[in-house]
Amino acid sequence: MSTESTGSFTAVDLIRTKRDGGALGPEQIDWLIDGYVQGRVAEEQMAALAMAILLNGMDRQEISRWTTAMIDSGQRMDFSGLRRNGQRLPTVDKHSTGGVGDKITLPLAPLVAAHGVAVPQLSGRGLGHTGGTLDKLEAIPGWRADVDHDQLLRQLETVGAVVCAAGGDLAPADKKLYALRNVTGTVESIALIASSIMSKKIAEGADALVLDVKVGRGAFMKDQAAARELAETMVALGTDVSVATTALLTDMSTPLGFAVGNACEVAEAQDVLAGGGPSDVVELTLALAREMLAAAGVDEDPADALRDGRAMDTWRAMIAAQGGDPHADLPQAAVTETVTAPRDGVVTGVDALEIGMAAWGLGAGRARKEDRVLAEAGVVLHAKPGDTVRQGQPLATVHTDTASRVESVVQRIHTAYTLTNTQPERPVARDLILGRVVAADL
Amino acid sequence: MSTESTGSFTAVDLIRTKRDGGALGPEQIDWLIDGYVQGRVAEEQMAALAMAILLNGMDRQEISRWTTAMIDSGQRMDFSGLRRNGQRLPTVDKHSTGGVGDKITLPLAPLVAAHGVAVPQLSGRGLGHTGGTLDKLEAIPGWRADVDHDQLLRQLETVGAVVCAAGGDLAPADKKLYALRNVTGTVESIALIASSIMSKKIAEGADALVLDVKVGRGAFMKDQAAARELAETMVALGTDVSVATTALLTDMSTPLGFAVGNACEVAEAQDVLAGGGPSDVVELTLALAREMLAAAGVDEDPADALRDGRAMDTWRAMIAAQGGDPHADLPQAAVTETVTAPRDGVVTGVDALEIGMAAWGLGAGRARKEDRVLAEAGVVLHAKPGDTVRQGQPLATVHTDTASRVESVVQRIHTAYTLTNTQPERPVARDLILGRVVAADL
Repeated sequence: MSTESTGSFTAVDLIRTKRDGGALGPEQIDWLIDGYVQGRVAEEQMAALAMAILLNGMDRQEISRWTTAMIDSGQRMDFSGLRRNGQRLPTVDKHSTGGVGDKITLPLAPLVAAHGVAVPQLSGRGLGHTGGTLDKLEAIPGWRADVDHDQLLRQLETVGAVVCAAGGDLAPADKKLYALRNVTGTVESIALIASSIMSKKIAEGADALVLDVKVGRGAFMKDQAAARELAETMVALGTDVSVATTALLTDMSTPLGFAVGNACEVAEAQDVLAGGGPSDVVELTLALAREMLAAAGVDEDPADALRDGRAMDTWRAMIAAQGGDPHADLPQAAVTETVTAPRDGVVTGVDALEIGMAAWGLGAGRARKEDRVLAEAGVVLHAKPGDTVRQGQPLATVHTDTASRVESVVQRIHTAYTLTNTQPERPVARDLILGRVVAADL
Repeated sequence: MSTESTGSFTAVDLIRTKRDGGALGPEQIDWLIDGYVQGRVAEEQMAALAMAILLNGMDRQEISRWTTAMIDSGQRMDFSGLRRNGQRLPTVDKHSTGGVGDKITLPLAPLVAAHGVAVPQLSGRGLGHTGGTLDKLEAIPGWRADVDHDQLLRQLETVGAVVCAAGGDLAPADKKLYALRNVTGTVESIALIASSIMSKKIAEGADALVLDVKVGRGAFMKDQAAARELAETMVALGTDVSVATTALLTDMSTPLGFAVGNACEVAEAQDVLAGGGPSDVVELTLALAREMLAAAGVDEDPADALRDGRAMDTWRAMIAAQGGDPHADLPQAAVTETVTAPRDGVVTGVDALEIGMAAWGLGAGRARKEDRVLAEAGVVLHAKPGDTVRQGQPLATVHTDTASRVESVVQRIHTAYTLTNTQPERPVARDLILGRVVAADL
């Protein structure tokens, strides 16, 4: 345990300041983050500070400096030199706080790129019940998540879209702090969540950023007030460093689309890129695309590029550029089982958390970072809220590698579905887009 | 970082419970403390939990179980077999929360032992501006703080009083937790302070315990409300495990007596044992002795034993039993300097914190555990609140080994003294004993 001090600060004094409800000054925050990365501020000191921050909060200036200090702990990417046909290429990034069946990045990145905007999507792998974009794309034979810096720039200039693994040199302070928060019960702090997300996203260097903040049972944020606070905090952080940032609050009480897993979500994304696909996935993809295009100054309707095949062409080029075969068959599950309706009724709810947990149980997600995921694992829904089902009619099909995984999952599927005996008086409607936060609102 | 779980608990879940304002159950607390000692609960997890406890508190049942779990992490002493003249010897312990010039243990332990009560005083060394009883006694040539268990029992049966170092096997969980709290800004929690003190004191195994909870500038507790809460919490903890426990709240705005340091405090204690000494030291020694004797069922006035030399006899026997020469000359300082009044006036305050810091600066205390202290170092006051002084008259004399230590300390002495030009309208009175807490009050 270190009690070492440098300059005029000591870790204990700064912990006490935050503990007693005070605000940390800019130099104090810089000293803390740098000291944490260098090891002068010990893990147990940062854990106590994180708990004090969780319980006492940080003001906008503190969060902003905390974020900047985490960015300054590592490299910052620079896309200002990107050119196509002699013109500077605008870059727009998108971040989702994570949901169930959230494959939106897959159709969205090529769709936006098809409009002459560069979309660098540095993504992560899944942990817990929400899937990871890289895990999903790795279901495509040959596709590689690792892209070096030169290829990243080249692919943005040519194809326009890249979905790849983020390098370890972006915001290393956040990486260290996130691992600490995960084992110390200090994840659920708006200030720390916002600065964690935004430090990575700002370090990724795009000109603009669109945030998809999920709300509901299947999301990290269970209620709209907290989700709005998170969205406002993140939009403020982006604005403070001149990254044009907007956020949508979107529903995550029900899974997005029908497919929840890896290969099955890729297939669904390809349906959307082919001009079809589930209406909610299409709606959210277009809504986020409109935000991204507006941020890049492009005044076009992205729906056209889904219809005329331009988005699909960009998808295929993007997959191929990273070694993938966009025409290859996707992995098929050795074991499938269909869960059927126990009685006649109307579906009034499909719990996103239960479905996410079911997909996880089938092998689509991981419990620990070092776990491997099954490409073929997942749940494909056949009925969504508002649908009328008859007894014995399929509710969902589970896909996995071994029969032993199926049993516990079937119960989750049943738990996820809420059936009513009679037609509800009002139609079961879903408000997918619950709100929008822009800098001018703050 | 460990995320391992055992049984049905995980550290993260228990941290979250406390973080969100819930109460921890008995088995959860046992699991946490045992896991912390065994290393299943990591330092950073306990740090986050300690901060959550500091900010959200613990209820009486939680603190009681927390204390018991810390006791159960180590050995518990047993004095029930002590006999003198065939009779069972009652044991009474005293604990002070730490003050400036607080040499009370020195006259008190032999005074109470002179009445046929065994007084095992397992003491600590000083850290920061408050002195340590062992550091003071080590100023006596030959005296040793280390006493093995057999000698401890023998000395209690023969002499009746022992002041010695506590073994490392008492409440090891507390030792580990205290070191952690010290570097994580989580010291100032009533629940954690009370359980830390009481786990050690209860593990020391005396039948009864008298607590001296200090209040004021020179004490850890700066205000009376917090001191009373701490006293009540500790009396409840003792009572819950059938240790007869009472507490006095006593003033620590002004140093106790005239001597603040090591050898000089021994000399002052000997004055008290000889029937003289400063009135405040005598008053507090007798007040605590009365509490201890009452707890042991002895109905005698301890003032008699100071007057008739019985307390002094026991002191000499106690010092000699641990290798000390009670008649030896105490170490003399190579450098002394007397600080004088800058003008005529009446002393209305002598700040205990400033005087404690001055003694520390002279070498009487230590900044880190491994530092050595100077036996001869200290401050001897010549004027106390209520005294009238003339310009140039001595306020205090500083004692140390090198002239370079003196300069910065002289300013502290001046800062400590508040002089008014005219006689205050009301006499400068000091309420030394501010309150008393017994189990019946709770």
